[in-house]
Amino acid sequence: MNLGIIIYMLGWIMKVEALFMLLPAATAVIYKEQIVVCYLGVAALCGVLGILCSRKKPERKEFFAKEGFVTVSLGWIVLSVFGCLPFMISGEIPHFVDAMFEIVSGFTTTGSSIVPQVEDLSKATLMWRSFSHWIGGMGVLVFILAVLPLAGDCNMHIMKAESPGPSVGKLVPKIRSTAKLLYIIYFVMTVVMIMLLLAGKMPLFDSICMSFGAAGTGGFSCRNTGQVGYTAYQQTVITVFMLLFGVNFNVYYRILRGRFREAFRCEEMRGYFIIVAAAILLIIWNMKGLFPSFRQAFHEVSFQVASVITTTGYATADFDQWPEFSKCILLMLMFIGACAGSTGGGMKVSRVMIAFKEMRKELSAVIHPRSVKVIKFEKKPLGHDMLRSLNAFIIMYFIIFFLSVLLLSLDNYDFMTSFSAVAANLNNIGPGMSVVGPMSNYSMLSYLSKAVLIFDMLAGRLELFPVIVLLAPGTWKNSGFRRPSRMRL
Amino acid sequence: MNLGIIIYMLGWIMKVEALFMLLPAATAVIYKEQIVVCYLGVAALCGVLGILCSRKKPERKEFFAKEGFVTVSLGWIVLSVFGCLPFMISGEIPHFVDAMFEIVSGFTTTGSSIVPQVEDLSKATLMWRSFSHWIGGMGVLVFILAVLPLAGDCNMHIMKAESPGPSVGKLVPKIRSTAKLLYIIYFVMTVVMIMLLLAGKMPLFDSICMSFGAAGTGGFSCRNTGQVGYTAYQQTVITVFMLLFGVNFNVYYRILRGRFREAFRCEEMRGYFIIVAAAILLIIWNMKGLFPSFRQAFHEVSFQVASVITTTGYATADFDQWPEFSKCILLMLMFIGACAGSTGGGMKVSRVMIAFKEMRKELSAVIHPRSVKVIKFEKKPLGHDMLRSLNAFIIMYFIIFFLSVLLLSLDNYDFMTSFSAVAANLNNIGPGMSVVGPMSNYSMLSYLSKAVLIFDMLAGRLELFPVIVLLAPGTWKNSGFRRPSRMRL
Repeated sequence: MNLGIIIYMLGWIMKVEALFMLLPAATAVIYKEQIVVCYLGVAALCGVLGILCSRKKPERKEFFAKEGFVTVSLGWIVLSVFGCLPFMISGEIPHFVDAMFEIVSGFTTTGSSIVPQVEDLSKATLMWRSFSHWIGGMGVLVFILAVLPLAGDCNMHIMKAESPGPSVGKLVPKIRSTAKLLYIIYFVMTVVMIMLLLAGKMPLFDSICMSFGAAGTGGFSCRNTGQVGYTAYQQTVITVFMLLFGVNFNVYYRILRGRFREAFRCEEMRGYFIIVAAAILLIIWNMKGLFPSFRQAFHEVSFQVASVITTTGYATADFDQWPEFSKCILLMLMFIGACAGSTGGGMKVSRVMIAFKEMRKELSAVIHPRSVKVIKFEKKPLGHDMLRSLNAFIIMYFIIFFLSVLLLSLDNYDFMTSFSAVAANLNNIGPGMSVVGPMSNYSMLSYLSKAVLIFDMLAGRLELFPVIVLLAPGTWKNSGFRRPSRMRL
Repeated sequence: MNLGIIIYMLGWIMKVEALFMLLPAATAVIYKEQIVVCYLGVAALCGVLGILCSRKKPERKEFFAKEGFVTVSLGWIVLSVFGCLPFMISGEIPHFVDAMFEIVSGFTTTGSSIVPQVEDLSKATLMWRSFSHWIGGMGVLVFILAVLPLAGDCNMHIMKAESPGPSVGKLVPKIRSTAKLLYIIYFVMTVVMIMLLLAGKMPLFDSICMSFGAAGTGGFSCRNTGQVGYTAYQQTVITVFMLLFGVNFNVYYRILRGRFREAFRCEEMRGYFIIVAAAILLIIWNMKGLFPSFRQAFHEVSFQVASVITTTGYATADFDQWPEFSKCILLMLMFIGACAGSTGGGMKVSRVMIAFKEMRKELSAVIHPRSVKVIKFEKKPLGHDMLRSLNAFIIMYFIIFFLSVLLLSLDNYDFMTSFSAVAANLNNIGPGMSVVGPMSNYSMLSYLSKAVLIFDMLAGRLELFPVIVLLAPGTWKNSGFRRPSRMRL
């Protein structure tokens, strides 16, 4: 394990976080809130520690997948621990587990909250919560890669570990320019959304918070009523942008380059929009008669569907009160999630599509035992390694899922509560159903349950492997990779 | 598709079923019930049709995996359609879907019932229901293989399709003698159980029904009160035998041959007993204070755990009233199921263990990228094909699971009802929770839901592939395998 380079990267994360904290600090200044001291203080602490850790560039350059995973998961933990300090110091969320829950929910773009009345929080904290979605959406390490000149291996392994989805096709060969490009697309889309909301007469503060949440597919609100209070136009803008941020960013890259046909041929994007359309139609059919008009039904249902499949977690309706069939569809969407290479969570549309193809291949092997079939996705054949790692992902996913439900059930709430809470947090959605429904929050769960959900949020955002690798004893054993000199023998 | 041999096999199934129906007919004679006419009539019909279909041996001998799957799934459908006729003709269960539900539940050893008061049924029908568990437990086609001299390919593909679990290691090279041996072990164990129950002063009728149910890991009762009314000794005998019938029959084969050390080294059996012990201890811990003594707790909990993990479905306690954590453990056991090569259902302990090993291998590939590791189970390395098919199984399993829950949710019962109903039927357990709990039944579900559950029971018992292959359009297409002469070109 190359600890030197990991500490160096952690230092950079702290420096970047200190920089990011200037936004809530500025908000506090504008709204004349005393909490500015907390944010500036923590930013200073973070900055100093960061500078200390990244003082000198590490000499040893070995950086394997293992180091990538450990850097990313430790990085996210460091990010969260410093990020929750202002909540605790200011006394707005005094308990450590609660504060961690809130900020991890922010960075992982989950959006599940333990705060019953968000309007009781200071504007600075509301801004920091929403900003954490934006930072976490694209990934803080991807940001650092965009600004920091590092060796190739390091870049690749960090990018692999932090980006969502199985890596089918890379954007551009050079990781650094990819990272830059991703952030530019992300930034521009966010700004466009803010402007469209402002055009619909939403206050600037709300526009920024809503756009940060939608861009990162997060879901924190800055109003007690969630998104119910916004106008139909504003809700429509949010719906459209939630869906857009759930699309594979490859598509936008291609559009930018003028490769329109290639962009629209993206298999995953088509699957994603087919699922969205099917879900909307099925729910409208199931709830016919419960809305005054088709138009109203379409408006409400498409908002909730977009919010759930992109794992944003905004809500304009209490879908916990919907009929069971509609709730089941939403639950399934929670598992599917958005496209790989987007800011959304869940298992990702591409994984689900590849799994279906795997199943079909296996069936056809039974029916036509002598035919040799290769699984293709986005017109590229998928290698054995990729499929094996996808299968391990699915298995690991369900194991973590079931164990988490088991631990949550110790709280003795109904099954829908435990089940949907884990589904909503492991998939980085936010609201669950029943006790943790869209019009409720997570404050009544025990600290054990909250800790389990914090783990689930991180595992979900980083796609299981990095977190599990961090915890595996083998990672820290004195393996052959500790002293690479041994390998040269 | 070689239809000739499939029809020939179906003929044999009907003949064997006609023979089996003599047992309920005899019961009716003993208890002087008029229903004897129904059973003898259906047996006669079955026998005549069977003789017609199997009149001449088919000339074409080609028998591939596809034919094996189709034979087995069609065979089970034929078995069930004729099996439910006495219920309908006698008017005890007049509706076709209800009657099918009951008999499919019997043959697949599920044990979920739509009959609210079983004591209203005739003794003959009670006997037929329980006997169907015994027949379905080991598989009717395996029985036919044991008595019918067929070509090697045919045997192998049928055995593969009907036996539960991934085929790790065969009992003996010759399939026919394997089939015979399995039935002998099965028969002897059932007789021993009947005798032990008789020794505990259980009436003969009950002893036979209970033993059939435990042997096939079925779960139909012959009393309205289920297993609550039996004495502690009788319940203990049932607990022990349920567990024994959930063990891989390989173990008994080895014990028979005096290879004790090899028998006790069976990896799957050890995993199975560790899971059982852990589940019992965790539930007792969770329910401490709710039982008068540890002994009582151990007695009750071990009965329910044995019943659920072996997918039998007997109940001496209303576990739907247990705390959520205990219910969650039982739900997890439903998914795991018994050992491969036993009469139990579920995903099978070996599949779960192999899946865990796959996950560990993938992790260690990240941590030690240059090491080459082979997954071994029962000391044998597992090939890529086996792992691929296991992964396809797991994917298919969850897809069927989620789609079934979705369809059941149209009935608008609570989530626990839809979820546990599918879990209980896909895994061939029997009782679910909430509306379909152990002290309730499936009669209030809609016909659509019952039809979905009939499909799930069959899919679960035959381990997905045969049923899906039957439904796949490709199976029936005019493929190259229709005319093997073409392949010789």
